[in-house]
Amino acid sequence: MVRVGLLGCGTVGSGVVKLLRQNGHIIAQKTGTEILIQRVLERDIKKCLALGLGEEVITQNIEDIINDESIDIVVELMGGIEPAFSFIIQAMNKGKHVVTANKDLIAIRGKEIFSAAQECGVDFYFEASVAGGIPVIYPLKQSLAGNQIQEVIGILNGTTNYILTKMSKEGKKFDEVLREAQELGYAEADPTADVCGLDAARKIAILSSIAFNSRVTLDDVYVEGITSISPRDIQYGQELGYVIKLLAIAKEEEGKIQVRVHPAFVPFNHPLAFVNDVFNAVFIIGDAVGEIMHYGKGAGQMPTASAVVGDIMEIGRNMLHHTSGRIGCTCFSEKE
Amino acid sequence: MVRVGLLGCGTVGSGVVKLLRQNGHIIAQKTGTEILIQRVLERDIKKCLALGLGEEVITQNIEDIINDESIDIVVELMGGIEPAFSFIIQAMNKGKHVVTANKDLIAIRGKEIFSAAQECGVDFYFEASVAGGIPVIYPLKQSLAGNQIQEVIGILNGTTNYILTKMSKEGKKFDEVLREAQELGYAEADPTADVCGLDAARKIAILSSIAFNSRVTLDDVYVEGITSISPRDIQYGQELGYVIKLLAIAKEEEGKIQVRVHPAFVPFNHPLAFVNDVFNAVFIIGDAVGEIMHYGKGAGQMPTASAVVGDIMEIGRNMLHHTSGRIGCTCFSEKE
Repeated sequence: MVRVGLLGCGTVGSGVVKLLRQNGHIIAQKTGTEILIQRVLERDIKKCLALGLGEEVITQNIEDIINDESIDIVVELMGGIEPAFSFIIQAMNKGKHVVTANKDLIAIRGKEIFSAAQECGVDFYFEASVAGGIPVIYPLKQSLAGNQIQEVIGILNGTTNYILTKMSKEGKKFDEVLREAQELGYAEADPTADVCGLDAARKIAILSSIAFNSRVTLDDVYVEGITSISPRDIQYGQELGYVIKLLAIAKEEEGKIQVRVHPAFVPFNHPLAFVNDVFNAVFIIGDAVGEIMHYGKGAGQMPTASAVVGDIMEIGRNMLHHTSGRIGCTCFSEKE
Repeated sequence: MVRVGLLGCGTVGSGVVKLLRQNGHIIAQKTGTEILIQRVLERDIKKCLALGLGEEVITQNIEDIINDESIDIVVELMGGIEPAFSFIIQAMNKGKHVVTANKDLIAIRGKEIFSAAQECGVDFYFEASVAGGIPVIYPLKQSLAGNQIQEVIGILNGTTNYILTKMSKEGKKFDEVLREAQELGYAEADPTADVCGLDAARKIAILSSIAFNSRVTLDDVYVEGITSISPRDIQYGQELGYVIKLLAIAKEEEGKIQVRVHPAFVPFNHPLAFVNDVFNAVFIIGDAVGEIMHYGKGAGQMPTASAVVGDIMEIGRNMLHHTSGRIGCTCFSEKE
């Protein structure tokens, strides 16, 4: 039995609770052991009860999780930098493995967390932090690891991709489509981080750290959003055979890593041109594998929960086989 | 130092030798240890020498590899069922880990090999056996493992996809395009296994075994090829908004797994409709993650070598961290 302490039971947290219940049987079969939510740190008790969690599971005190020796894995889904960072470090110091979907935290304090995980000999998994349910961090670390990665190009923000798709198909203006997206729940009340490219920048910082086996932080990323894109830009592009996408691009040239987020013209026949609406994609060029693209839902409750649960299961298998602390040894390490 | 015994130095084998040399530095850095080709089983000595392999490395006697205690990993790239099967079993019995790209062998005798690997406590990796360089087996076992997989749809054969793409774009007949493909090296002299759907059937048998955590062999797959597709079929499809693709489909319905390969109409706006020429793709629907697609080159020297080297590195990391025999515990096991 693997016991989980869940920090935060918002959209993604609720998804994790649901998925562990809904697919409990196959999850136990594939992991080799059952996975149990032991405690949940959450202020909104009603929401937890509505999910079917028992009252004894819910707590407002982090100590109840950090000091519970039966808890093996802390799953941080609170978001933000603090107190998430401190909670993760405390959990690691108590020998607990950690899973997170928190891209802001990894993009900004990834290195410290990674060092702590190594020192404590615990697993730290974060597949959900980039491109939601799309497997991309693992493939870069494993199946594609023999490649010299030449370029990573991502459509990493669903909100802006939805807006640009709508603008392209319906000829509408940015402001108008943004309002519609907000009404549909595809854009947040304060959409700044999305439309200004910051969300995509955080994700490409994480991805390029792994792809180039180096350390890229948010400060290294040039960022330009889509707020000044006009229907005329889109129309001119279409006349010349291009669609406009907000691309997050990381390239290694002459030993230097260049990372940037900005709107770009993508030729009609490029695989990224077909990535529409809220879908995300990561297009990778490796010297051996050539062009690879992974496509899917980059956000949302269940796609993100899918990646979080995949990580929990992997840690569960590590525990069962006494192989914790094995993977990721070179990620976020400095380049030789 | 991890020492490899390579069985077969044909197209893919040569690619593995090249890649291990070309990216030796980053491969050693990411694995945590160097990877050395210790012996190569190959009749064509000249080809090996031309690759820069020393004469002392080349052998025509399998015993030189099986009985060499310094060899940790046997990489089987000979193809076919025998003697590949016997060599793999012998290697496992000597405690050697095994990597293969041999889809025929896994589709037909996968279960025996998997049992042998478990009994011997060695790793058996085969990412290259399906969709070449595209990471798909690992993601199904790891990041997507929490999903109940509902459907897997693959374009898994580059030759037939090239032929259908050409027929669609140029209105040519099957025979004519096949001849062109043979001249370009995209189709083999005897193209039967490709154009009759057998190659795709082997791959979907492997994929569905993993996706549905069950055992699917070639005999379970309904197979129909593309030899009877006419330009008129393609034209009618286009008029109605469809392209014709050779799809390999695996579905679970009411506890039964249905696996089939046949040409199918794919709507213009479906992600699989954009997979052209020799490219492959695997489209997966999971209950949590929704729609996912992995796209890339499904064959060819370096893309396949990319997957083989990724597997070798993973085994190298397992050896270094004493975590061999960890993954894949549930693959090819019978469903409960």
